[in-house]
Amino acid sequence: MCQLLGMNCNVPTDICFSFEGFCERGGTTDEHKDGWGIAFFEDNGCRSFLDPNPSVESSVSTLIRNYPIKSRNVISHIRKATYGEVKLENTHPFTRELWGRYWVFAHNGDLHDFQPDFSGAYEPVGGTDSERAFCLILERLKRDFRKMPPSELLGASLQQIAEDIAKFGIFNFMLSNGECLFVFCTTKLSYIVRQHPFSTASLKDKDVTIDFREHAAPGDRVAVIATEPLTVDETWIDVPQKKLLIFQDGELMV
Amino acid sequence: MCQLLGMNCNVPTDICFSFEGFCERGGTTDEHKDGWGIAFFEDNGCRSFLDPNPSVESSVSTLIRNYPIKSRNVISHIRKATYGEVKLENTHPFTRELWGRYWVFAHNGDLHDFQPDFSGAYEPVGGTDSERAFCLILERLKRDFRKMPPSELLGASLQQIAEDIAKFGIFNFMLSNGECLFVFCTTKLSYIVRQHPFSTASLKDKDVTIDFREHAAPGDRVAVIATEPLTVDETWIDVPQKKLLIFQDGELMV
Repeated sequence: MCQLLGMNCNVPTDICFSFEGFCERGGTTDEHKDGWGIAFFEDNGCRSFLDPNPSVESSVSTLIRNYPIKSRNVISHIRKATYGEVKLENTHPFTRELWGRYWVFAHNGDLHDFQPDFSGAYEPVGGTDSERAFCLILERLKRDFRKMPPSELLGASLQQIAEDIAKFGIFNFMLSNGECLFVFCTTKLSYIVRQHPFSTASLKDKDVTIDFREHAAPGDRVAVIATEPLTVDETWIDVPQKKLLIFQDGELMV
Repeated sequence: MCQLLGMNCNVPTDICFSFEGFCERGGTTDEHKDGWGIAFFEDNGCRSFLDPNPSVESSVSTLIRNYPIKSRNVISHIRKATYGEVKLENTHPFTRELWGRYWVFAHNGDLHDFQPDFSGAYEPVGGTDSERAFCLILERLKRDFRKMPPSELLGASLQQIAEDIAKFGIFNFMLSNGECLFVFCTTKLSYIVRQHPFSTASLKDKDVTIDFREHAAPGDRVAVIATEPLTVDETWIDVPQKKLLIFQDGELMV
C-alpha cells in the first residue's frame, strides 16, 4: 500500500512542514520506496515533481523540502508498487486536462480485475490500476457534463463513480481540479483542519516541531489529509468510509 | 520571442551540458525572463519541471543542472511573454495524453487572431496562443487517427496541421511523444547531430567546454535542436522553413 498526503487551503500555503514528515515514510519510517510525487496547483496552473526513486534519497524531494511553493491545493503520494512496475509512467500523482482545467489524482489501494473499456477520451499511459481508475473517473465526468458543473453536482457524480470503482477493491484516493480537493476512503485516511487559534505541532516521523502562530495569519485555514496522522499532538479525524468528502478553502463542505 | 531546446537520442542521455548554456538565456545572455520549463521522457513516462521564475534565478534549474536525468527525448523552453500573463499555467512545455501516450509541446513565436473552436477533446487551461496551437494539433490528430499511426502518416498529418496554423504567424515548435521529436520552423531553429567520432564543444553562453569522448560510447547518437546554436565550435544546420522534421533515435528521418 501507498501513502497519501493532500492539502487544501483558503490562501496559498507551503507544505514544507507536512512534507518533511511525510517523505520520511518513503524509506525511513515506512517501506514505501517505489517512487513518489507531488503536484501543486498555482491558480489554474499545475506542476508536478515526480521521481521513481525513494523519497528519502531523492534530489527532487530535497528541492521540495527547501523550496516553499505556495499552493491552495497539493497532492502527494509515496508508492509501494502492487500493480505496475517501478517506473516513471507508474508514479503518482497523475495529471490530465478536463473542461480546460488540470485534474490531479493519487490512489492508495489495490483494484482487482479492474480492466475497464475506455472510449478514447482518456487512456492510461502506464500499467497501474490507479491510472485506469483516474481515466475512468474523467471519462465518466466528461460523458455526464459538457462543462464544469456546480460542486454539489460534481460531488454527487464523483460519489457514484467512486462507489462503482470501489467494488473492485481498496480505493482511497485524492483528486483535485485546483479549486476543491475530493477525498474518498474505503480503508484509511485522516484529516485535520488548522485555523485560528493556531498552536504548535510536532511531526510523528521526524523530530521537528512548528509554531503555526509564527507562520499563519488569523484568517488562514488549512486542511491536511493523510493516510496516517502526520503529527502526534493534534487531533486528526478519520475520513468516513465510502463517503466522498469535498474540501474547499480549507474547510470540509457539507 | 522565446528560446527552444530539444534533444532526441538513441540511448538515454543527460542534457546537462546543453541546458547549462541554454538556461543562461533566461536572464543573463538573453532577456527571456518570463518563466521556463523542461520535460523529460523516460520510457513512456514523462516528467516536467516548470517554473514561472527566470531560469537563471531558479532553484528548479539548479536542480536540473546538477541532477543528470537520462532521457531519449527532452524539450525545454524559456519564455518571453507575448500572449498570456507570466504565470504557471502559461509556462511551456505543455503536456497532454493522446492514444495512451504523453505528448509534450513548446512554441516560439506569435500567432495573431488565433482563436480556434475546440470540440472538447482538448481545451487550453491558460491564455497562450501556444497552448491553443497544441490543443488544436492533438484534436486534429485524434480526429484523423484512432490509434498511433506509422511515423510517415503521422508526419504527413502534422505537416498539414502545422502549415495551417503557421498562416496565423510565427510558428516554431517542438513536439514529442517520447519516441520521435517533431520540429517545425517558420523563422529560426538550428540542429546538430553528434555521433562517432566525438570531439569537444564549447558553449556559446557560458565558459564551459566538454569532451564528448569522455561521456559517449561509440554507438551513441544525439540530435540537439535549438533556437540559436548552443556551441561556438560545431557546425549547426538551419532547420528548413515550413518543412516538418522528424528526429528518431538521434537522427533525422527522411
